[in-house]
Amino acid sequence: MGKQDGQRTGEAAAVTPRSKDYAQWYLDVIRQGSLAEHSPVRGCMVIRPHGYAIWEKMQRELDDRFKATGHENAYFPLFIPLSFLTKEEKHASGFAKECAVITHHRLKSVDGEVVPDPESKLDEPLVVRPTSETIIWAQYKSWIQSYRDLPLLINQWANVVRWEMRTRLFLRTAEFLWQEGHTAHATEKEALEEVWRMLDVYADFAENVMAVPVIKGRKTEGERFAGAIETLSIEGMMQDGKALQMGTSHYLGQNFSKGADVKFQNKDGQLEYVYATSWGVSTRLIGALIMTHSDDAGLVLPPRLAPVQAVIVPIYKSDEERAKTVEEAKKVFAELKAKGVAVKLDDRDGIMPGAKYYEWEGKGVPLRIEIGPKDLEKGSLCIARRFVAEIEGETPEAQRKRRKAFLPRAEAIASIVPTLDAMQKELFERALKLRAARTRVIDTLDEYEKFFKGEGGGFAWVHWAGDSKDEDEMARRYETSIRNIPFEDQIPPEARGGGKCVLTGKPSKQRVLMSKSY
Amino acid sequence: MGKQDGQRTGEAAAVTPRSKDYAQWYLDVIRQGSLAEHSPVRGCMVIRPHGYAIWEKMQRELDDRFKATGHENAYFPLFIPLSFLTKEEKHASGFAKECAVITHHRLKSVDGEVVPDPESKLDEPLVVRPTSETIIWAQYKSWIQSYRDLPLLINQWANVVRWEMRTRLFLRTAEFLWQEGHTAHATEKEALEEVWRMLDVYADFAENVMAVPVIKGRKTEGERFAGAIETLSIEGMMQDGKALQMGTSHYLGQNFSKGADVKFQNKDGQLEYVYATSWGVSTRLIGALIMTHSDDAGLVLPPRLAPVQAVIVPIYKSDEERAKTVEEAKKVFAELKAKGVAVKLDDRDGIMPGAKYYEWEGKGVPLRIEIGPKDLEKGSLCIARRFVAEIEGETPEAQRKRRKAFLPRAEAIASIVPTLDAMQKELFERALKLRAARTRVIDTLDEYEKFFKGEGGGFAWVHWAGDSKDEDEMARRYETSIRNIPFEDQIPPEARGGGKCVLTGKPSKQRVLMSKSY
Repeated sequence: MGKQDGQRTGEAAAVTPRSKDYAQWYLDVIRQGSLAEHSPVRGCMVIRPHGYAIWEKMQRELDDRFKATGHENAYFPLFIPLSFLTKEEKHASGFAKECAVITHHRLKSVDGEVVPDPESKLDEPLVVRPTSETIIWAQYKSWIQSYRDLPLLINQWANVVRWEMRTRLFLRTAEFLWQEGHTAHATEKEALEEVWRMLDVYADFAENVMAVPVIKGRKTEGERFAGAIETLSIEGMMQDGKALQMGTSHYLGQNFSKGADVKFQNKDGQLEYVYATSWGVSTRLIGALIMTHSDDAGLVLPPRLAPVQAVIVPIYKSDEERAKTVEEAKKVFAELKAKGVAVKLDDRDGIMPGAKYYEWEGKGVPLRIEIGPKDLEKGSLCIARRFVAEIEGETPEAQRKRRKAFLPRAEAIASIVPTLDAMQKELFERALKLRAARTRVIDTLDEYEKFFKGEGGGFAWVHWAGDSKDEDEMARRYETSIRNIPFEDQIPPEARGGGKCVLTGKPSKQRVLMSKSY
Repeated sequence: MGKQDGQRTGEAAAVTPRSKDYAQWYLDVIRQGSLAEHSPVRGCMVIRPHGYAIWEKMQRELDDRFKATGHENAYFPLFIPLSFLTKEEKHASGFAKECAVITHHRLKSVDGEVVPDPESKLDEPLVVRPTSETIIWAQYKSWIQSYRDLPLLINQWANVVRWEMRTRLFLRTAEFLWQEGHTAHATEKEALEEVWRMLDVYADFAENVMAVPVIKGRKTEGERFAGAIETLSIEGMMQDGKALQMGTSHYLGQNFSKGADVKFQNKDGQLEYVYATSWGVSTRLIGALIMTHSDDAGLVLPPRLAPVQAVIVPIYKSDEERAKTVEEAKKVFAELKAKGVAVKLDDRDGIMPGAKYYEWEGKGVPLRIEIGPKDLEKGSLCIARRFVAEIEGETPEAQRKRRKAFLPRAEAIASIVPTLDAMQKELFERALKLRAARTRVIDTLDEYEKFFKGEGGGFAWVHWAGDSKDEDEMARRYETSIRNIPFEDQIPPEARGGGKCVLTGKPSKQRVLMSKSY
């Protein structure tokens, strides 16, 4: 069984190492893991079954959390009449300019070619939703009359389209899948509680399910969602030190309820405009997952999001050996399934074990169970981990033993669930360490320049008192931006308190999080 | 507690009786159940939380069945380039003419009005997918090289758009939600097996989950999906005697693989075009659900699709009574939840019990559990059923007792799951009886005319040997069509065997299913 080690090394070369070309590595991991690919439609991606299965697991985890916090799902139209955007021009100008515009409703054949029928021109063009505030609030008008109808806590799982010229699989595509929460409240206080609650839901999901540590905070005015009074975000650090915004939660005040004229009768019998929130995460999270955990051999998945948590590969040379190892593999499969493990038996014939290992590694499966004739004789199983945490001073030999262990059968079976739990934790800790290693508390522009231009950058905790022009200046000089203004408890103790703005020297009450970003 | 009976009767008048105006009754049930409503976007509906929760239950049941039969989910682009439809003109001409056409990708503001930016005109217009064969098969080309890549068993949950001028909530809307399976096979035999397998999956879902009996069969040539060699369907009967096509499964032969040039190397090393199937069901099923089971008081849901299977309503006059009944209600809630019942505790204050009963009845909740001070004293619970099966010769008094029973607490709790199971079965049997009562074996046009013009119609088993012009003639005269050519085992024994065509008198091998339809 030594063969697959050599084979793995040889074939793993198919993934470009991160150190050589990070952007290519990202694409290679996606290809190797069969996660997604470009389509013939400009800017639109195809999410392949393995990528979609990860999205389904994310959806289930998020949806359970939305429902546990009192939300219900609903579905609103894909199309928005242009007049809605005219009405909300301030809102529209922020992000809705690049979008798909529908102008006709019929095709016809002309000399064998299919073209839009000029006679089917719409009186009013429609846009494909880039987000749904306007269309949803138009509906809320008839749903909300009294304080008894509030809070209205609705979420939608949907596709949205924002025309993008430069696309990147999962991170930026013209069409993407997401969820958008849209809630209505009787008071500002309740609405703000909702905004903070949903940010916490996202942070909990990111850290405990995706194993990606995040920093929670407020966006600066320039980075706010168009029409929002306050935008909160969670920001994760990718392995190249750049930040990725993983979720946002907006307090919309009465902007949209005024736009759509949604009033309610409060307990005192007076009419008041409703207070609104919206919040969303998208398939972009799969990009964050890839860039946080994967390695030069391909995708690495946290067990809680792995569509397959353990794959069983029987190893044999003769038909007789095949019969025996497959029989044992089926037993192991049944035992693990009974324990709630998402287990897969790969008994495809005619494919060498090494090729199977390679395929499942590329798909990020956390555990592999190899069953060969010798394991049957000895009553053992071989458990191979997709990754192990680094231990300082450990010999390569010792690490190899942790990576691939031969255990007595009963012990092996009993170890699967605890090992998956441990791997989930280890991934989070590894990401936390990486973030710590690339985070600096910085007080001068010299240090800042050195960090971002000489040392590859990462997260910088800096004092800030500039305006939006100053932010632009930092972007121009260093390609960095304020990711968010973190909540007090998100700031490392050594970086708390007041100081002087790193650019302007003006007094600053607290540090902000600056970095390059996706 | 007698009050709510009077109240229920009074308020139930809000739903138009079926006998008075069936189309209005359908709309009233939807409104009363808060299932869906029209949106300001022509032809597009809003699916409200209760309607969407039913769809989610349908999705879960269907998705489990798709996965159990080896399918995986994936996601393909919303947009299809026009050139794809030109290439598949035969396919496109069948149904893709009425569709949303995207011609621009940017908006701009002109004097405060948002309009398409003329400079953003697309070189090639895109259509919003009316179905995804063309875009999916373009992708399959790179996924399939060898027989080892087959079968490829993929399903997509998505929204699709077919421009419709005359829309009807759930039954016919411009945008609707559906699933579309698209599979690729190495042989015609395997592909045909898949087509039949998925029809069986749909029939199983319709009968055992939706409690709607269906008739399985082949569509006639004129009713086939554009590009299909064979289209199978399941047809249910609505309470007005009309048929509703509830799902279709298509054998596409090599039509789409030839169009997209998808070949594979077979076991003998030769290149061959792949064999294809597709199959789908949509939110239309919610329309079928409503029209099969609901009554003049509103929505009736089979327990297996009820988002809330049992609602608990505490009844009180004083604060002290409230404290006691709510406490007991919480206990009952926990006990039922532990049994896996989808239970809801409605302890909203300030709303009369009668109003609550009315609301939950309108939402089709199968069981209501009332807990009043007297129930606490007696140690009993009141269990009210949303419907009971009719028993011939039963007195109204006896039926009332079955509809609403006071049972000792332990007995009541123990009865919930068996009662839900029984109600599921009773709904199916009631629908089966209704269908039988409105089904005729018909041999002459006189009888046929009498059935459809005098007796309100239903399902007619008739011999048929006409061509498509003859089918048009039947449609013109009676507004009926051949729903499908049922499989032998779907035909009642008394209607089996050969005979003479009801219209042309030509010899016919078997009867077909004719009726009016949605």
